[in-house]
Formats: sequence, C-alpha cells, structure tokens
Amino acid sequence: MTEISPEDAARHRAKMEKRKAVQDAEVAEKSVEKGLLIVHTGPGKGKSTAAFGLALRTLGQPDGAKVGVVQFIKGAWESGERRALESFGPRVEWHSMGEGFTWETQDLARDIAAARRAWDKVREMMDDPAIGLLILDELNIALRYDYLPLPEVVAALSARRAGLHIVVTGRNAKAELIEAADLVTEMGLVKHHFKAGVKAQKGIEF
Amino acid sequence: MTEISPEDAARHRAKMEKRKAVQDAEVAEKSVEKGLLIVHTGPGKGKSTAAFGLALRTLGQPDGAKVGVVQFIKGAWESGERRALESFGPRVEWHSMGEGFTWETQDLARDIAAARRAWDKVREMMDDPAIGLLILDELNIALRYDYLPLPEVVAALSARRAGLHIVVTGRNAKAELIEAADLVTEMGLVKHHFKAGVKAQKGIEF
Repeated sequence: MTEISPEDAARHRAKMEKRKAVQDAEVAEKSVEKGLLIVHTGPGKGKSTAAFGLALRTLGQPDGAKVGVVQFIKGAWESGERRALESFGPRVEWHSMGEGFTWETQDLARDIAAARRAWDKVREMMDDPAIGLLILDELNIALRYDYLPLPEVVAALSARRAGLHIVVTGRNAKAELIEAADLVTEMGLVKHHFKAGVKAQKGIEF
Repeated sequence: MTEISPEDAARHRAKMEKRKAVQDAEVAEKSVEKGLLIVHTGPGKGKSTAAFGLALRTLGQPDGAKVGVVQFIKGAWESGERRALESFGPRVEWHSMGEGFTWETQDLARDIAAARRAWDKVREMMDDPAIGLLILDELNIALRYDYLPLPEVVAALSARRAGLHIVVTGRNAKAELIEAADLVTEMGLVKHHFKAGVKAQKGIEF
C-alpha cells in the first residue's frame, strides 16, 4: 500500500478542488439539446464496435427509443453483435444491405445498386419517429468509392429531425461529412495482433 | 445514377481481384489462437463504449461465455449501457467499484483504497473460467494516478489464462501496458459538440 503524507493528501485535495470547479463550469455553460451526427473513422479498431456500444446506451433508456442499423458493406452474415442486439426484439431494426467488401464482389454496378438500396432504407428509417439512434455502418466506404453522391448524403444527414442521433462508421470519412458532424472520433491503430500472426479471435473480431 | 463504362468495370474488377488475393494471403498466414489484451486509450470518445460493444460480440456467441465488468472510477450510478447489458442476466457480472472521478472525491487515501478493492475483484474474476471477456473500465486512470502499482497490474494481466480477453480503457495508458498488449487503439478527438455549447445528450453520453 502506498504511503500518503498529510502534505500529499492536502496537495491532492487542493488540486482536485480546482479541477472540479473547472469541470462544473464547463458543464454549466452547455445548454443545447440536439440529435448528434457522429462519425467514427480512422484505421484503428472499434469504429463499428463503439457504434454498437452506443446502441446499448439507447436501449438502456427507459423511454423505449429504438435503434436502427443499416450496414452498407456487410451482407447477411451472422455476427455476435447482431445476435446480441436482436435479443432486444423490436427495439432493434437491423438491415445488412451490403454485398460484402468491394474486393469480394468485384462488380462495381452491383456495389452501387446495393449502396442505393441501403440509402433508401436509411431515408425511410430517418422518418420513423420511434428511432432514436441510427447506425450507418461503413457508409464511409460507400462514399469513398463514390457509390453514392456525397452532397445528397450530407444534405440529408444534416436535415435529420431533432432528437435523432446518427452514427456513421468507416475509414476515410469525407471532409464534407466531418464538417457537417457534431462529434468525430478518429480510431488510430497503435498495435495490432494480426502483425504478430495472431488470427481473428471469436468474441473480438466476430 | 453514376454511369459505368465497360472499361471502368474491367479496371475495377482487376484492381479488386488483386486486392482480394492480398487479403486472402494475409488471413491465411495467421494461425495463433489466444486471449487478447486490448487497450482503448486516447482523448477521444468511444473507449468504454467500444469495450461495451465487444461485450455484445461475446454475448452473441452461442458458447454462453460470460462478460465481467469492473469500473475503477465510476461509482454505483446508473447508466444506459449497464441497464442494457444487465438484461442479459447472469451472463453479465458488473461491478462499479469506484468512488467517482478523483476531482469529485478529493480524497487520495479513499481513491487508493477503492482502486485496491476493484483490483482484488479483477483478480477473482480472472480466475473464473466462465468469463470470456473482462472489461477493466478506466483502469488507466487508476494507474495514471498511481493508485495501483503498475508492475503488479501488468504482470497479472500478462499472466491471464488462455482464452480470456481483457479490455482496459481510459486515457493516458502507460507505456508498459501498451507494450504488454496485443491490440491498442488510440481514440483521437477530431471534433466535439461540447465545444459548440451542446450539452451531454441522452443515449450518447449517458
């Protein structure tokens, strides 16, 4: 057990009193309530996973708000997070509209058609007042490959109704989307077990 | 709808065929199965949220593996993600062992004692073979303030049993922990709505 002198304790208390005053003042000056446009981008892990974590936060609210998920790239394959979220029944509406990664399909016209179908579904869900959080998984990939017109997408997301939070995931988020967003997190890759020859692990990658 | 010439389609296909070959070769050369030590750090959002998203991935596995959560800083307050994860019943074991942020308690001895109790709980859960994923939420904060001896913590986490994934969250992860980890993601803050005077939003921050 670390020894704490009375001087250490007093110094710590004084420092933390100051810190708390700053913190309280910062919280007090914020007042706007709005549905946020959130972007998770960058080469690191956790972009989609953090979006699904946010789904939990919505599902834990007693107001009964629903979570919508549209996956732009992933197809109908099963995943742990999908199975787990579907245990919340009608509070989660999940649509995997992709045809797989673009290097799997190798068919540009098919990729574009799939992205358009997914986007139509998004527009429909944006109009559903029961949905409090909408996750647009890998939309950044569809935008990066120009499967959808960026101005159309940014305009529609910016015109979301009050109270609807939207999370867009995927690498290489477009500058215009970042500009329109309220909250942008860049997931940076510091270290990855694949580099050490460790394969995809159950419960982590799938 | 974007026009695609036959040349564009062929070029796309050739590029993607190459990309797929690289991808397949990369997957094939990985063979090690192990429980991962994962660190989510950095100033951005999503460190804890991505950890809870991983919990979903474990809970969606049909093997019935349990998720353990030990919160080092947060106290007994309710949160959306906790309520949602607790709907999985005995598959989630959640312990909020903190006394609040250190600038709230302003009492160093109390913070150290709380961190030690939390760490004892972690050691106990690391020995429980039913647990497949253990989330040590904000452990990095406890390590940063020297509430726990870093060598003891790193040694114990490194000696985890095979098959146990551990996720450590919090800003300012120690270099020794990053060194011991298999997978490290740095969440970078690109843009935050607090700066625009928008307050903490239900379903996003709590």
